[in-house]
Amino acid sequence: MDIQEFVEKSIGNWRSQRSAHHLAFSHFEAVQSEIEILAIAEDDPEAIALCESYNIDPKLAVSPFRMSWEGQSDWEDSEAVKGTCVLIPIPDPENPNQGSLLRDRGYAEEMAAIGKYHFTDDGTFVLTTPYDRAAAEEKIWFVNPNVRCRVSLIKTSAGTGVVMASFSSEIRQTAKD
Amino acid sequence: MDIQEFVEKSIGNWRSQRSAHHLAFSHFEAVQSEIEILAIAEDDPEAIALCESYNIDPKLAVSPFRMSWEGQSDWEDSEAVKGTCVLIPIPDPENPNQGSLLRDRGYAEEMAAIGKYHFTDDGTFVLTTPYDRAAAEEKIWFVNPNVRCRVSLIKTSAGTGVVMASFSSEIRQTAKD
Repeated sequence: MDIQEFVEKSIGNWRSQRSAHHLAFSHFEAVQSEIEILAIAEDDPEAIALCESYNIDPKLAVSPFRMSWEGQSDWEDSEAVKGTCVLIPIPDPENPNQGSLLRDRGYAEEMAAIGKYHFTDDGTFVLTTPYDRAAAEEKIWFVNPNVRCRVSLIKTSAGTGVVMASFSSEIRQTAKD
Repeated sequence: MDIQEFVEKSIGNWRSQRSAHHLAFSHFEAVQSEIEILAIAEDDPEAIALCESYNIDPKLAVSPFRMSWEGQSDWEDSEAVKGTCVLIPIPDPENPNQGSLLRDRGYAEEMAAIGKYHFTDDGTFVLTTPYDRAAAEEKIWFVNPNVRCRVSLIKTSAGTGVVMASFSSEIRQTAKD
C-alpha cells in the first residue's frame, strides 16, 4: 500500500458511525456523520498555498484531497459537527511507505498541522500528529473496498497517557442521482 | 512480539469501554465491563481437555489463560454481559509469529472455536475465527503497558460483508487490597 493507492480507495462518500471514549470519566459519545473525500488538483491554489506555508515544494505533493464532514453528536448541548480541510501527502523520497501529511486545520484541534504517516505490512495507514499540548495517533484500514475502520487516540504530549480513544466505522455510500 | 509476551502483557484486571456499531441499522451499543485475564498452568485439567478435544498435543500449548468479564450493556432489555473462557495459544512451530488459538467457547457465539492468529510488524495481534454462519476478525494492540485497544469485526462467512464492528478501550486497574 502506498499513499496514492490509499487516497484513491478513500475517494467517495462515506456514512460514518463514530464512538468516542473519554477515558478519564468513562463517557461514551456517539456521532453519526457523512464524510466526503474529494481528489483535488496538484496545482490547486489552496494546495500550493498550504505547501508554501510549510516551506515545502508543491511539486512533492502526491494525491492531495479535501475531506468534508457533517454530522450530529449525542453529546449534551453539542452543535452540529461540521468541517472541511485540505490534506496533502508528501511521501518520503527515499521510502514511499512513509511521509508527511499537511492539513490546513486539524480535526482534533482547529489549527493547521503536519503529521507523519507510514503504512504497516498489512496496509494500515498510521498517522501521528503533534499538537501544542497533545498528540494524535490515527490508524485507518480497509476491511473491504466499501468499509473503512479508523481508530484515533488523543494522547498527552509526552505520549504516554491516553485522554480519548475513538473508533469510526465508515461505509461507502453509492452515488445518488 | 510473540504470543508469550502478548499474554504476559495482558495478564491483569482491565476496565473496558466497548462500543458496538450494528452497521445495517446504524445502531450504537455501549458496554462497560470489568475483564480479568489470569494465567493458568499448562497442565491445568481444563487446558489439557480443551487441547485433546481438538486432537492437539497439550505439550504444544504456550501461555494458556482464562478470561472472565462482567458488564452492562445499554442495549434495550439486555441482560448483564458475563462470561468466562479458557484460551490456549498453539504457536506455529515453524513461525512463532503466528499460530492457532483454542477456546472453550467463543464470545461472538457461545460455542467452542479455533482461530488463527498472527502479529503484524507493529505488534498488533490479529485473530480470525470462522463460525458456522459468520467469521470474526479481531485486532488487539497495546498503546502503552496500561492501555489496550481491541477492534472486532463480525463478517458474513464469505468474509466480504461486515455485520458489526466494535471497539474496546481497556485500561489496566491497579491491584486492590
